[in-house]
Amino acid sequence: MSVPADRFFHVIDPRTFDRQLLDELCEITSRVRTLAKSPEGARLLQMLLPDRRAMLYFTQPSTRTFLSFNNACHVLGIRTSEIRDPAISSEVKGESFADSIRTFSSYVDVIVMRTPEPGRAAEAARLMDMIPRPVPIINAGSGQDQHPTQALLDIYTLERSLEGRGGIDGKVIGLMGDLRRGRTVRSLCHLMRNYADVRLVFIAPESFAMEDDIKEYLWVHGIPFTETIDLASTLPELDAIYVTRMQSEWDTEGESARVDLGRFSIGPAQLSLMKPDAIIMHPLPRGGEIDPAVDHDPRAVYWRQERNGMWMRVAILLKIFRRDDQLLSLDLGDFTAPGETVA
Amino acid sequence: MSVPADRFFHVIDPRTFDRQLLDELCEITSRVRTLAKSPEGARLLQMLLPDRRAMLYFTQPSTRTFLSFNNACHVLGIRTSEIRDPAISSEVKGESFADSIRTFSSYVDVIVMRTPEPGRAAEAARLMDMIPRPVPIINAGSGQDQHPTQALLDIYTLERSLEGRGGIDGKVIGLMGDLRRGRTVRSLCHLMRNYADVRLVFIAPESFAMEDDIKEYLWVHGIPFTETIDLASTLPELDAIYVTRMQSEWDTEGESARVDLGRFSIGPAQLSLMKPDAIIMHPLPRGGEIDPAVDHDPRAVYWRQERNGMWMRVAILLKIFRRDDQLLSLDLGDFTAPGETVA
Amino acid sequence: MSVPADRFFHVIDPRTFDRQLLDELCEITSRVRTLAKSPEGARLLQMLLPDRRAMLYFTQPSTRTFLSFNNACHVLGIRTSEIRDPAISSEVKGESFADSIRTFSSYVDVIVMRTPEPGRAAEAARLMDMIPRPVPIINAGSGQDQHPTQALLDIYTLERSLEGRGGIDGKVIGLMGDLRRGRTVRSLCHLMRNYADVRLVFIAPESFAMEDDIKEYLWVHGIPFTETIDLASTLPELDAIYVTRMQSEWDTEGESARVDLGRFSIGPAQLSLMKPDAIIMHPLPRGGEIDPAVDHDPRAVYWRQERNGMWMRVAILLKIFRRDDQLLSLDLGDFTAPGETVA
Repeated sequence: MSVPADRFFHVIDPRTFDRQLLDELCEITSRVRTLAKSPEGARLLQMLLPDRRAMLYFTQPSTRTFLSFNNACHVLGIRTSEIRDPAISSEVKGESFADSIRTFSSYVDVIVMRTPEPGRAAEAARLMDMIPRPVPIINAGSGQDQHPTQALLDIYTLERSLEGRGGIDGKVIGLMGDLRRGRTVRSLCHLMRNYADVRLVFIAPESFAMEDDIKEYLWVHGIPFTETIDLASTLPELDAIYVTRMQSEWDTEGESARVDLGRFSIGPAQLSLMKPDAIIMHPLPRGGEIDPAVDHDPRAVYWRQERNGMWMRVAILLKIFRRDDQLLSLDLGDFTAPGETVA
Repeated sequence: MSVPADRFFHVIDPRTFDRQLLDELCEITSRVRTLAKSPEGARLLQMLLPDRRAMLYFTQPSTRTFLSFNNACHVLGIRTSEIRDPAISSEVKGESFADSIRTFSSYVDVIVMRTPEPGRAAEAARLMDMIPRPVPIINAGSGQDQHPTQALLDIYTLERSLEGRGGIDGKVIGLMGDLRRGRTVRSLCHLMRNYADVRLVFIAPESFAMEDDIKEYLWVHGIPFTETIDLASTLPELDAIYVTRMQSEWDTEGESARVDLGRFSIGPAQLSLMKPDAIIMHPLPRGGEIDPAVDHDPRAVYWRQERNGMWMRVAILLKIFRRDDQLLSLDLGDFTAPGETVA
Repeated sequence: MSVPADRFFHVIDPRTFDRQLLDELCEITSRVRTLAKSPEGARLLQMLLPDRRAMLYFTQPSTRTFLSFNNACHVLGIRTSEIRDPAISSEVKGESFADSIRTFSSYVDVIVMRTPEPGRAAEAARLMDMIPRPVPIINAGSGQDQHPTQALLDIYTLERSLEGRGGIDGKVIGLMGDLRRGRTVRSLCHLMRNYADVRLVFIAPESFAMEDDIKEYLWVHGIPFTETIDLASTLPELDAIYVTRMQSEWDTEGESARVDLGRFSIGPAQLSLMKPDAIIMHPLPRGGEIDPAVDHDPRAVYWRQERNGMWMRVAILLKIFRRDDQLLSLDLGDFTAPGETVA
C-alpha cells in the first residue's frame, strides 16, 4: 500500500504545512470545541473513530503532551496503549529501533512518539513508507529539533485570540526566553511563512538567542525580525508575546542559572506596558517567567492555549483518518445550547 | 463557573457527608450491582458517562484503590488517563503543584488523586474553586488523614450486611489493629455520627490506640466508645468487627514489630466467640491479622467489601456528574434474570 | 459458582488443547481478520464484549505480548487495566500472591498474566477454582515453561500459510536456535500431537539442544523428530522453519556469546536453499539470526505472524466469554468490500 504524496499522513515537520492545511485544521478545531461543550456533542465525537487504536510511545518524560494526546484520542473514541518507560520495553532484549516501530505498527493504527533524540520520528516515518501496512507517525517532540503539534496549537490560539483583529496576518509577535534551545519557538517560526506581513521580535539573553538556521529560514521567506534584550521598550508594540522557560535540562554547565530571569519575565509591571488587546502565550510548564498573578488578566491565554492543544490534536487525528468531512457536515445548531452546567 | 455549595462535587472529607447523602449513595450502589450482573445491564451502565474523561493521579503506591477507581470509571464508559510514577511527570521540570493540577484539569472532567502527603486533595479542591473551569477532585487517600471513598464503601458493606437486622443503627462495632495510623478507621469514625445508637469498641495495643482527635469528635457527637486490649472478652458482644493491619510503612523505629499481633487477630478460635450473625470486615491488604482459613466462614465479608468498593465508586461518579437520576429511573425488573452463567 | 470441566476457561497449558479447539480458534481468527479490514466490521467487533474488563498483570518486561493483548481487548471493546511495575503494587505492603490475584479478580472479568517465575499462572488458575467468583486466567508467558497463546498464534500462522498445501498435516517443520530455553518452541511442540504425519527437525548448537522432556513427549505421542547442527543440508527438505533468538537473559555465565550464530541464521544464502513455497517464522524480537534483507522475501511471514498474534488473542477472548457464536453467525459478505484505503 502506498500513501499518496499529497495526503496528510505523517506529522513530522511544520515546514511542510501550508496555509490551506492550517486554516482547515483551525476550522476543525473550532468545530470540535463547540461540539464538546454538550454531552450530546461529546458522544457524537466519540462515534467518529471508535474503530481505531493508537500507541503513545514516550521515551522522554512528559505529562502535558502525553495527557493531551491521550485525551484527544479518548475524545474520538480511539483506544490507546502506552509505552512510557523504555526500560520495560523489549528493547532490553536488543531489538532494533526499526523492528520495535514496525512491531508497534502491527497492533495499532497510529503511533504518537516523543523521544529525547532528534530525528527519531522522521526515521520512523521513513520506515513506515517502506512496509506493506504503514501507519501514520505523529511527532510529539523529538529532541530539540521540532514539536509540530505544539506549533499547530499555538497557531490556533494566535488565530482565534486575534480573530477580532484579522488573525495573525499583519501582527507583531514577540518570542521571549530560551530561544536557542526551545523547540516550540523554532517550530512556530517555521509556520510563520504562511501568514502575511507578520513581524517577529526575539527577546532573549545573548547566550540564548535564536539560532542562525531559523534566522536564515525567516530571511529566505521574507519574514522581518528584530532581536533585543530590552523587554520594556518592546512590549508596547507587541500584539502577542510568546514566553518560554529556560530549558535547563539541556544545560551542560549550569548556564541557565547565570541568566537574570527577571529581565525576561511577565508580571504586573510588564502588564501595564502592554496593549489592552495583546495576548500572552506560554507552552507551559512555566518556571518563574510568568507571575501567577498574571493568570487573572484577560490577556493571559496560556491556560486556554493548553486546552486548545487537546482540541487541535483531535483535529489532527480526524484529518489523518479523513473523518473531518463527517464532522464538517454536521449542523452545529443543535449543539450550541448549554447541555450540562457543571464540569 | 461557580459550583453551588450544596452540590456534591469534590469528595474530600467524610465529615461533610450527611445521612441523606449516605443513604442515596447506598441506594445507587445497590442498583449498580444489580444492573452489572447481566450483560445487558452492564452495557446500559456504560452508556451513562461515555462523554467523560478521568485522570488518576497516584503518587503513592496503590494497586487496590487504583484498580477499583479505574474499573469504576470503565463500568460507566469513562475513559481514564493515569500518572502513577511522579518521576515521569513534568514536575521534574520544576512545575508547581498548582500548575500541575490545573494542567490535569484542562484535559479531563474529574481528577482522582492519592498522595503520601496529607491535605493535598483538599488543596487541589481549593485551587479548582478559583479557576474558570473547575473539575471535581476525589480524594483517594491523602497521607494518614483521610480516605473518604473507603469510608463510604465500608458504610455500604456494613449497612447491607446488617440489612436484615436494621442496618448500622443500634449496632456495636469493633475496630481493631493499628488505629493510630489507619486512615480508614479514622474516616469511618467520622461517618458514624450519621447513625443512631451506635457504640464503638476500639481494640488495639496501647501504642497504637485511637488518636485523641477522633475520640474528641466522637464525644462531641455523642457516640459512645470504649477501649480495650482484650479481644476475647469483647468479641461476643460485637455485631461487626473491622480489622486492620499494622501500617508498618509509617514506622520510624520498627515499632510495629514489637506488637504481639496474635492478640489482635482473627482465626478459628476467635470465630467461635463471635455472634452467629456478626460480620468481619477488613480494608485489605491484610498481613497476618486474619487467618485465610476465616475466608470460608459466612461472616467474613471482606472480599465482598473489596468488590463493593468498585460499585460505591461507580455510585460516587454518577452522583458527581448527576447521572444518578437516569439510573434510578430504570425499571430493574428486566435485569434481574441471570444473563450469562460464568465470569 | 463452578466452571464445567469441558469449558474453555483458563488458558494455561497447551497440552490440554485438542484439534477441534485449535480448528475452532483458527476459524474464529480468520473471521476476525476479515471483519477488521473495514471500519464497519471493526465497529461490529467492538460491540461483542464492551461489558467486560480485563487486567494485564505483567511483572516480566514485555512490549510485544503486552501490546498484542491490550489491543486484542480493545478490538472487542474490552476495557483494560494494567500493572506492569511490581514495585507500585501493594505487594510492597506484604500481601500474599493469593490475596493479590483474588483482589485483581474482584475488579475485572479476566486476568492476563506474565511472570518471570514458572507455574504462577497455573497457581492463579487453581486459586480461582476455589473462590465464589472465579475469573479466567490467561498465561501470557510464565518463566521458561509455557507460552500457550504464542503457540496458538504460531499454529494459526502455520495452518494459514500452508493452507494451499493442506495445512500442517504431513509437513516437515524445522525449529532452530536456542531450543533449550525458548518457551515458544516448547509450547509449539506440545501442540504438534494434534496434527497428522508431522516431522520435526531441531537445528541447534549442542549446548542449546531441545530438552529431554519435550523429546520424550514427542516420542510418547508418536511424532518423529531428528536433531542436527547442519542447517544447509536440512533447509531443502523443510516446509517451514521456525527461527528463535538466543535467550541470553537466562545466561548464567555468558554461554550465548560462545555460539557461532552464523551457522544458525537465515540470510540471502540460506534463502536460496529453501523450497519456493516454504515459510520462515520467528516469534520476535529477533537478534542477528534473521537478516533484515530477508523481510522482503515472500516466504518471510514473521511480521504477519506477529499481527496474527493480536487476532488469535481476540479469538481466545471470544471463545472464553462464549461470544464466538455471535461472530460465526454473521454474514461476512457485507464486510469483504474495501472500506477505507489507508491506515
